[in-house]
Amino acid sequence: MLITSEDNSFIKKIKKLKDKKGRYEEKLFFVEGLNSVKEALDSDFKVEYVVVGEDVEFEFKGDFKLIRIANKLFKKISDTVTPQKIMAIVRMPVYREEDFIKEEGVYVIADNVQDPGNLGTIIRTADAFGADAVFTINNSVDIYNPKVLRASMGSIFHIPVIATANEVLYKLKGKGVKVFATHLKGEKFVHEVEIDKGTAFILGNEARGVSSLDFVDGFIKIPMTGRAESLNVSIAAAIFLYESQRQRLIKNKQNGIILKKYSQMR
Amino acid sequence: MLITSEDNSFIKKIKKLKDKKGRYEEKLFFVEGLNSVKEALDSDFKVEYVVVGEDVEFEFKGDFKLIRIANKLFKKISDTVTPQKIMAIVRMPVYREEDFIKEEGVYVIADNVQDPGNLGTIIRTADAFGADAVFTINNSVDIYNPKVLRASMGSIFHIPVIATANEVLYKLKGKGVKVFATHLKGEKFVHEVEIDKGTAFILGNEARGVSSLDFVDGFIKIPMTGRAESLNVSIAAAIFLYESQRQRLIKNKQNGIILKKYSQMR
Repeated sequence: MLITSEDNSFIKKIKKLKDKKGRYEEKLFFVEGLNSVKEALDSDFKVEYVVVGEDVEFEFKGDFKLIRIANKLFKKISDTVTPQKIMAIVRMPVYREEDFIKEEGVYVIADNVQDPGNLGTIIRTADAFGADAVFTINNSVDIYNPKVLRASMGSIFHIPVIATANEVLYKLKGKGVKVFATHLKGEKFVHEVEIDKGTAFILGNEARGVSSLDFVDGFIKIPMTGRAESLNVSIAAAIFLYESQRQRLIKNKQNGIILKKYSQMR
Repeated sequence: MLITSEDNSFIKKIKKLKDKKGRYEEKLFFVEGLNSVKEALDSDFKVEYVVVGEDVEFEFKGDFKLIRIANKLFKKISDTVTPQKIMAIVRMPVYREEDFIKEEGVYVIADNVQDPGNLGTIIRTADAFGADAVFTINNSVDIYNPKVLRASMGSIFHIPVIATANEVLYKLKGKGVKVFATHLKGEKFVHEVEIDKGTAFILGNEARGVSSLDFVDGFIKIPMTGRAESLNVSIAAAIFLYESQRQRLIKNKQNGIILKKYSQMR
C-alpha cells in the first residue's frame, strides 16, 4: 500500500515529530537517511516504522512496519531540503541515569547548549572517545531534534544521551566523579589535571557559559595563544574528551594494555 | 541620507556579495553583527562601508563610508533570517602565501571541505591555538562565504586564511614543514608524533577524505575507542591543533618559557 495523501493519519502523526511537543506526546523521534536507519535497526532501540519513498528498495528485515509513501510527501515530514526518502521512526528509550553513573566513568554535561549542530557533534565526539554518557540540563536543545540527530551521525544509538536536571551533578559527585568546567579563572591547563577517569566535563551555553558553577569541582583552562577569545562548545568538549583519552592511553601503555578499536578501555 | 529602495545601485551591489561570483567580481565580502564589524575595524583589513539600519546608533570613526538603509532592506542583503542591522563591507586582502610559510610554522590545510560551519570553526580554532595560517585547496567552500565568516567569529581578521592550490603543499615541504593526515593506516597516535612546530595538518572532505594523499609525509591516528567511526573534520583539526599546542607548552615549560595569553609562543 502506498500513502499518497497529506491528510492520511500516519502522515499527520509523523509530521508532529518535527516539533519537540509532538515528539514527547508520541514518545517517538525520527532519523533520516540509509546510514542512520541502519544504525537504528542495529541498535537496541525499538524502531516502530521504516518509511520509504515510492521508488526506494529496502531489503532489511526486522520487527518494524515498512510504510511506503509518495515521494512528494517526504518534503512534508522531512527536516531536510532534499529528503533522502528513507526514515526510521524510533521509540524514545527509557534510561535510568543511575545505571550509567559509575566511579570510573567519563561524562559530558551540556548545560543550556542551544545549537543543535553543536550538541550533535558533542554526542558524536563523546561516542568516538569512549565516554560513558552525555547529559543535557537547563533547557538545552532537545536531544531528539532532527538537526541534533543528523550531526550526531548515529551516535545517539551508541551511547546513552539523557535529558535530565541539575541533580545529575549531585549523583555524579556522590559517586566521586569530579566535575570540571573551563573558566578564565582556571589555574591549571587541561593536560595538567588528571582526567583519565571518574571525570565529567560541563559545557555552558554558547553565549553565557556554565549556569551551574556551584557544582563545579575544578576550573581548567584550554591553552589558547592566538587572538580568538573562545572556542566553539563542541570543540571545547572534544579537547577535554581527547585529553581524557590520551591520559588513559598513556596509563594503559604503562600497564601493558593495548588499545583496540571498538573495545572498551575501562 | 537613508536608502529605502531595493533598486538603489548600492543595494544591488551589496546583494551580489551573497554569492561567490559577485564577491570575487567586486573583491569585497561582508560580515554581520556589531562584534564582527568591530573586529573588522580593529583589523588591518580595509573596511569600505559600514551599513546600518535606520534606527541603529553607530559611534565608531574610521576611514569608511557609513551607509544608512531602511530596516526592511536588511532582509535583502543579509545572510541571516533575523538580521542584526549592522554590516561591514570589507575589501578582500591580497596575501602572498610565501610570506607566511616558515620552517617553524603550524598550518591547517582544508582539502575540499564543503560545510561552511566546519570551515569557519576550523579557522576559529586555528586562531585560538596560535596556528600561522589556514589554507584551503581543491574546491573547498569559499572562505568569504557568510556562513564561514559567522562560524569563524572574527578569526578571519586574526590569521591569514588563503584559498590556494595544491602547490602550497610543495611550498610547505620546501621549507621542511611536515604534512600530516589522519588515516586508518596511520601507525602512531597524534600524541606520539612530534608536531609542536614545522607541521601542517591536511583535512579531507567530510565524505571522501583527503584527495592529495601523495603529498602527505605521515599518517596519524586519533585514538577512538567508542563506536563512532569518524570525527567531524573541525573536531579532527581541533585535536591536532590542541596536541600541537600542548607539545609546545610542555617544551616551553622545560625551557622556562611561560605562556602568556595573546603572546606569540614561537
